[in-house]
Amino acid sequence: MSLEKIHQAIGADFEAHLEVIRQFIRTPSISADGTGIAETAEKVRGFIEEVGGKGEVVPTEGHPIVCGELMLGKPKTLLIYGMYDVMPVEGEEWMVPPFDAEIVDLPQFGRCLVNRGVHNTKGPLRAFFNTVAAIRQVDELPVNLKFLIEGEEEQSSRNLPAFVRSNKERLQGDAVFFPFFAMDNRGQPVVHLGAKGMIHLELECQGGEWGGPRTRGIHSSHGAWIASPPWKLVHALASLEDEDEAIAVEGFYDEVNEPTTEDEELLAKLATVFDETKILEESDAARFKFEGLHGEELLKKYMFSPVINIDGLVAGHIGEGVKTVIGHEATAKMDIRLVPKMTVEDTVRRVQDHLARHGFEDVQVRVRGGYRWARTSVHEPVVQALLETYHQHGYEAEIWPYIGGSAPFYLFHDELGMPIIPGGLGHGGNPHSPNEYAVVDGIELFEKSVATFLDKYASL
Amino acid sequence: MSLEKIHQAIGADFEAHLEVIRQFIRTPSISADGTGIAETAEKVRGFIEEVGGKGEVVPTEGHPIVCGELMLGKPKTLLIYGMYDVMPVEGEEWMVPPFDAEIVDLPQFGRCLVNRGVHNTKGPLRAFFNTVAAIRQVDELPVNLKFLIEGEEEQSSRNLPAFVRSNKERLQGDAVFFPFFAMDNRGQPVVHLGAKGMIHLELECQGGEWGGPRTRGIHSSHGAWIASPPWKLVHALASLEDEDEAIAVEGFYDEVNEPTTEDEELLAKLATVFDETKILEESDAARFKFEGLHGEELLKKYMFSPVINIDGLVAGHIGEGVKTVIGHEATAKMDIRLVPKMTVEDTVRRVQDHLARHGFEDVQVRVRGGYRWARTSVHEPVVQALLETYHQHGYEAEIWPYIGGSAPFYLFHDELGMPIIPGGLGHGGNPHSPNEYAVVDGIELFEKSVATFLDKYASL
Repeated sequence: MSLEKIHQAIGADFEAHLEVIRQFIRTPSISADGTGIAETAEKVRGFIEEVGGKGEVVPTEGHPIVCGELMLGKPKTLLIYGMYDVMPVEGEEWMVPPFDAEIVDLPQFGRCLVNRGVHNTKGPLRAFFNTVAAIRQVDELPVNLKFLIEGEEEQSSRNLPAFVRSNKERLQGDAVFFPFFAMDNRGQPVVHLGAKGMIHLELECQGGEWGGPRTRGIHSSHGAWIASPPWKLVHALASLEDEDEAIAVEGFYDEVNEPTTEDEELLAKLATVFDETKILEESDAARFKFEGLHGEELLKKYMFSPVINIDGLVAGHIGEGVKTVIGHEATAKMDIRLVPKMTVEDTVRRVQDHLARHGFEDVQVRVRGGYRWARTSVHEPVVQALLETYHQHGYEAEIWPYIGGSAPFYLFHDELGMPIIPGGLGHGGNPHSPNEYAVVDGIELFEKSVATFLDKYASL
Repeated sequence: MSLEKIHQAIGADFEAHLEVIRQFIRTPSISADGTGIAETAEKVRGFIEEVGGKGEVVPTEGHPIVCGELMLGKPKTLLIYGMYDVMPVEGEEWMVPPFDAEIVDLPQFGRCLVNRGVHNTKGPLRAFFNTVAAIRQVDELPVNLKFLIEGEEEQSSRNLPAFVRSNKERLQGDAVFFPFFAMDNRGQPVVHLGAKGMIHLELECQGGEWGGPRTRGIHSSHGAWIASPPWKLVHALASLEDEDEAIAVEGFYDEVNEPTTEDEELLAKLATVFDETKILEESDAARFKFEGLHGEELLKKYMFSPVINIDGLVAGHIGEGVKTVIGHEATAKMDIRLVPKMTVEDTVRRVQDHLARHGFEDVQVRVRGGYRWARTSVHEPVVQALLETYHQHGYEAEIWPYIGGSAPFYLFHDELGMPIIPGGLGHGGNPHSPNEYAVVDGIELFEKSVATFLDKYASL
């Protein structure tokens, strides 16, 4: 494969590539409420056909999965995993409308595309197709491709496991690649070998036989003798964690493992280049929540600690002004991040047991989805190909044993026996936040790096 | 005054009176966001003029106060206190639109007007004017009237104290009467001699120098090392109360007095007729929050306990579906109900001190308004006139030393030296809740009872 020619072609056509990306991300595809999901799935199927493959939109009980393949008789087959759904934007304040795909000059980064999903991850998904199209115009694709693009990643991939389990042959290949802008805000590529597991759950307290108003809010003067569902939820939540956010659920840390030898080696190396300031910038925070922890110890906390997070909290009157009312229901939307070797089932059971033991049997736990953690070894050829790609473009990657975030990567390891790695050059930021962005120059770099990666992987 | 003729006139014209009430309550006058406030204030001024008085809409820093008088050279002057503002309806589910003033057949009560404010308290306010108009058509009004109708009762009467303090002469009279449907859901008139005090406040936690995201929600994976404002607010709230809702703020009960001798006598009498089932029905609850407390002890809890209530709770993602985010701010809207002899200032200071002492100095306390408790003696002529009115209509009132709710009645006692009593026959329900209603027959009874009361009061 003539990599240089392909890189030139990508550079020459990049403004056109950019327009295709902008057009794609302008269609919202909100995971939470389904807005634009069907239309976007159909577009993704079209992308597979456009590069010469066969695509299919497969319905599920939730949002459809887009599947496809481009089999060219090459020795190696790469399964491209991706997602076409995005987070909602309600309640957020954006500098430009969140689906106008405007190009904004951001002080730190220059020209940036600002749009929901441009970074996480419809931007890199479409850019990947741009690269494949560019390669096929100039040369032969060096590997076979299969595609698995889901529409429920932001809802803990609810219907993906069943699909993967019943389509093992169709999805089989040598490794899985997840197109992603992997450079941080200093322009440093970062490789995350593993991902935490995830449980989405809701805790809800409603008035009932135990007390409290059952079907409607009541005048808060009754608080002198009628129990309050919002208060009960607050106490139930508070019981889950100590005030320093250490989890107080009995047995919660029982299955939490120490880092492996490979982890320890990678952590030690990572600590030498780890930039705390960058993390604080990315998370818009003045300090970490642990006094006096730095370097390797701080990284260990981040990667090897389970977390219980409050995603949302709602009860009673949340509008303007005053309304003196005891709400009949109160809800906390939560996520739990799992580390090796926690399981979804045991963790949910422990939370339920804890609530019952502490007098909160009337607080309901609704599990909305979940999956466990996953880890790819640094020695896998697909990882080595990615590291060499970065090297060839002039970058030495930072290697993180785990990311704090979650992805359903266990499916590929456990069900298909395939390692998975997310990657690609380029930088984006503010996922799940207002003003999600991707650096325009970085997108071009991403497209070129994907070409390099496919070439490297084919030859390893 | 020919009471019988007046009662007949009210009966004969009642359908017309009802239409006037419906027209009035159809205009929303939402205290929280100001919808319809100006228009409604103007209508109330018109009511005063309509019965032959002089009315004025007096601007304040918030919603205007409607003031007026109808001086007829009578020996006694009654100041009519009332409110023309109502609670919001957003987020509530009503059986009919909340501002259509539809008449609905409710199983327990027969024909009822269903509308926000029909009970609390635009219904009785307009019905009072109906009575005055009816009296003046048939006979002479036996007392002089002054009017003080505010538009911020549902926002703890923020601008009323300043107005009262600077208009003492204008408001001076012998007693204050608050038109109100005072029958409960069994048709039993209830007299509340006192009201609790009230503090409206917000507790808010935002990310800042202490940690947490400062200006936007961040991806919840950062929860492993970045602090969470929603978690901090939950812990701050939980620290205010034990899990059985006993207030844990240091010194909170220091100024809480035991009931007086008059209170004890009234409590003992009230306990003989006190109906727990009725209270549970009204508050839509299966049980009280105190195991094993009944009768006098339960009544004592209700009337003589301060309460900290969560009116509303909001943080992070509260829309549909999942959004894994650490919100940069979390807010609890709260009210505190004060009993003798708690003060607003000391109570706020204790909450602030408590938060600081327990490590929550970064949780901000915003006081939105407040006033203290108040109490009228059962021996006041205005109370005796009301009790005799009920008796004359065939009812013996239940007398409660206090109501659990709040009203800025201290102003009349302390600033003007006038006793105040709410009253009138008739029944309504669901204040601050969906399907607020008033029984149609009860409104007619209310209008007649007001005529009786004015007659009694003039002659005592």
